[in-house]
Amino acid sequence: MSVRLPRAVGLLGGGVIGGGWAARFLLNGVDVRLYDPAPGALDQVQRILANARRAYRRLTQVTLPTEGALNLVQSIEDAVFGVELVQESAPERLELKRQLLATASRAAASDVPICSSTSSIRASLLQEGTDHPERVLVAHPFNPVYLMPLVELCAGQHTAPDTLVRMAEIYRGMGMHPLVVRKEVDGFIANRLQEALWREALWLVNDDLATVQEVDDAVCYSFGLRRPIMGPLLTYRMACGGAGMRKTMERFGPYLKWPLSKLTDVPELTDTFLDKIAEQSDAQAQADNITEQERDDCLVALLQGLRSRRRTAGETVARWEQGLRDGAAQPIGSDVGPLRSPTLETPSEWLGTNGRVPESRYLELCTFATNNLLSCIGVDRDYHSKCGSYYTLETHLSDLREIRAGDRVQVLTQIVSADDEHIHLAHVLTVEGQVDPAGMGEQVLIHVDVGSGRRCCVQGSVRECLMKLARVHAELPRPKRASAGIAVG
Amino acid sequence: MSVRLPRAVGLLGGGVIGGGWAARFLLNGVDVRLYDPAPGALDQVQRILANARRAYRRLTQVTLPTEGALNLVQSIEDAVFGVELVQESAPERLELKRQLLATASRAAASDVPICSSTSSIRASLLQEGTDHPERVLVAHPFNPVYLMPLVELCAGQHTAPDTLVRMAEIYRGMGMHPLVVRKEVDGFIANRLQEALWREALWLVNDDLATVQEVDDAVCYSFGLRRPIMGPLLTYRMACGGAGMRKTMERFGPYLKWPLSKLTDVPELTDTFLDKIAEQSDAQAQADNITEQERDDCLVALLQGLRSRRRTAGETVARWEQGLRDGAAQPIGSDVGPLRSPTLETPSEWLGTNGRVPESRYLELCTFATNNLLSCIGVDRDYHSKCGSYYTLETHLSDLREIRAGDRVQVLTQIVSADDEHIHLAHVLTVEGQVDPAGMGEQVLIHVDVGSGRRCCVQGSVRECLMKLARVHAELPRPKRASAGIAVG
Repeated sequence: MSVRLPRAVGLLGGGVIGGGWAARFLLNGVDVRLYDPAPGALDQVQRILANARRAYRRLTQVTLPTEGALNLVQSIEDAVFGVELVQESAPERLELKRQLLATASRAAASDVPICSSTSSIRASLLQEGTDHPERVLVAHPFNPVYLMPLVELCAGQHTAPDTLVRMAEIYRGMGMHPLVVRKEVDGFIANRLQEALWREALWLVNDDLATVQEVDDAVCYSFGLRRPIMGPLLTYRMACGGAGMRKTMERFGPYLKWPLSKLTDVPELTDTFLDKIAEQSDAQAQADNITEQERDDCLVALLQGLRSRRRTAGETVARWEQGLRDGAAQPIGSDVGPLRSPTLETPSEWLGTNGRVPESRYLELCTFATNNLLSCIGVDRDYHSKCGSYYTLETHLSDLREIRAGDRVQVLTQIVSADDEHIHLAHVLTVEGQVDPAGMGEQVLIHVDVGSGRRCCVQGSVRECLMKLARVHAELPRPKRASAGIAVG
Repeated sequence: MSVRLPRAVGLLGGGVIGGGWAARFLLNGVDVRLYDPAPGALDQVQRILANARRAYRRLTQVTLPTEGALNLVQSIEDAVFGVELVQESAPERLELKRQLLATASRAAASDVPICSSTSSIRASLLQEGTDHPERVLVAHPFNPVYLMPLVELCAGQHTAPDTLVRMAEIYRGMGMHPLVVRKEVDGFIANRLQEALWREALWLVNDDLATVQEVDDAVCYSFGLRRPIMGPLLTYRMACGGAGMRKTMERFGPYLKWPLSKLTDVPELTDTFLDKIAEQSDAQAQADNITEQERDDCLVALLQGLRSRRRTAGETVARWEQGLRDGAAQPIGSDVGPLRSPTLETPSEWLGTNGRVPESRYLELCTFATNNLLSCIGVDRDYHSKCGSYYTLETHLSDLREIRAGDRVQVLTQIVSADDEHIHLAHVLTVEGQVDPAGMGEQVLIHVDVGSGRRCCVQGSVRECLMKLARVHAELPRPKRASAGIAVG
């Protein structure tokens, strides 16, 4: 499966796009020879590279290849010397790009592919004046190049088809998604769509229908949230509940005549056109069969990602959760028996690649139950800021039997012991309908002053609740395995 | 902070949107009286509600309020009886909506807000013929209503401003993001933008520039991936590296004259317009100061979410990682000393809400190191399918000192003992520049047959590598704390 990447590439231009390419190549182990006569070009590329290293460390735990070597060179000829691929990312001026590509094509070996990162110019215009134009093409990426997957590959009239195939493989090998554009057209595909949105956004601001912030919010919090999961056409199809694209066009077609955007010219909805779009949409739906539940799971995954960054819709979710927490009464149980967490249904995404729920989820369940207990005894934001909080010192997890996707899991939490500084907890993970526990988690928490991080004593009503609960739990049988050491066998 | 939500709402229409509203209200603890004369309406709402329950269980671990009661009623009057809010979600036909709203307004108490979910019709047109039109407005949500945050609030000419304020609070209290639209306009804000994209997409298919699948892919894998994080205007601003919107318009303005989309009419770039957009964009950038690193962190979070679903760009990342794994040589070290994992820099998102790296990340580091060890002894997909794999039986984590964001962490892994069925590992978490370890993780793994889940013996070259490494590690000093039980103090 692993593709042989070029050993070295020549980059012409080290701006935002060229620098992004440099990062993508270098972190995939490819040497880069960079030509950019602008002062400070190397600094800019180094800065982008530092961002990319940081992003990749967060993105993946797979070991990356040894980073390629970055060399700033003094001429186009020097940049393309001995390389296996040339990528041009100069400013968007036809004459400048032509000159760079022509010079590069004369200096590079005749079979070295030469790609332009242009975001709008047709490849045929760029091939004029080049040596061996059959290896010249457009490979248009998106900012930041080291993270955005799409690269649009556009042939000019002279481009050899197998050059496209070769390039698609190389970009795919570097973690990108190559899309071969069928016809030569200004702006290719993605930018034509992006441009349509940009124009309408400008009209909205111009006509005082919305401010810049409101336009952006209207997108981020609505259809923009679906965009990483499905494009505009599948979205419209799904809005009709999978009744097919003919039905979708019947329903949404009439709106195309309404003044629902500034620019309203649309293709005529002839039978030929309707047949074509319906057929292509069916093919897509077959290849990419997304159910409502799968759509929801993807949206949830995106919302959770955004919540971890407290950004846009993620911030909305976090505030909602805070409201729920604030609104929920937290009765301290006169219950006898261990504290019971709310029951959770195991989502299918908890399954690891080996088809099992990994121990990290057992820990997540224990953490959830610990937080539930702390809530119950009154450790809230107010207590946190005035008196302190509990941190986990030790955790001992035992995976006793498999938890399956769809299992309804409840955690029973018992205080093994508690003093002014510590709580020793035992969590028993139970699955609805099963007698034997699925797992066990033991934790020791320590009470600390949040500012200094030093241990200190629990105070006030939290102390009272804790001790009362500890006394109740001391009457219960001690959970099996508590305080046991780890051993084989 | 927690808003009092209505006790009960009346819903007119139980289709995709009405059903989505029902789910959002019910799961936030609000009773729903539903009027929909279509056969099967209740079933459809129940199905959407089941999807929503499932999605919320995955989205949040916060305890939801007790679910509201859903009642199907036989008339509009019955639906609005005793409720505190009416939400109409009938098909997009003016006369039908007018009739529903007029009837509801006569039957409901005079101060009950009446909202229409229309996606395009202006509120003033809907107010005609209603009693107390000052409480009639548009509240336009997006599908699926129980997950998508945006709701556009649009007043008609009679709507009282405080009705908008009240409604914004209620929707916010249910986890939504209300956006008050400044002027009455067909299609409001989000749908005008979505419509622009839809028209351009139809042209692309019509003109055979791309298929349905290619149009959608071009969006999902490129600018669509940025959309949950930033809208179109902030995106263009950032493409100019934060030089401001005037600069952005100088750079991208000329392209507006290029035929980069089918529909090319744009506002005149007068000084007045440029001043306005620049000023609004500055205000946005100040309120919503996103750095390149923050953008990258958000993109990474989205990519990780998509990878967990193996969808679109997430699938691209997963394939790239597989390629890296396949391509990487896995030398079994003639090193003496414990096995060293690749060094990881602690990302800032590892910090929990209390400003500490939680124990779940200690476990993540240990799991990473365990997988590294298994890789080294040759447990790969091939071995997995033919001979078996290792599962974790027990884990004991000790959090010895704080790990800080930005710390460079390496895990030293030592085999404490190994037999044909077990491996007992000790992981020591070290921070670059610190002598004392930050944490310790002990794990017992068991070798199992993946199909049956039963324990079995390690085989072949994996066994050889394991035993060789175990012999080398047996010569090392036994790590402190290994095999210790948990205890307070």
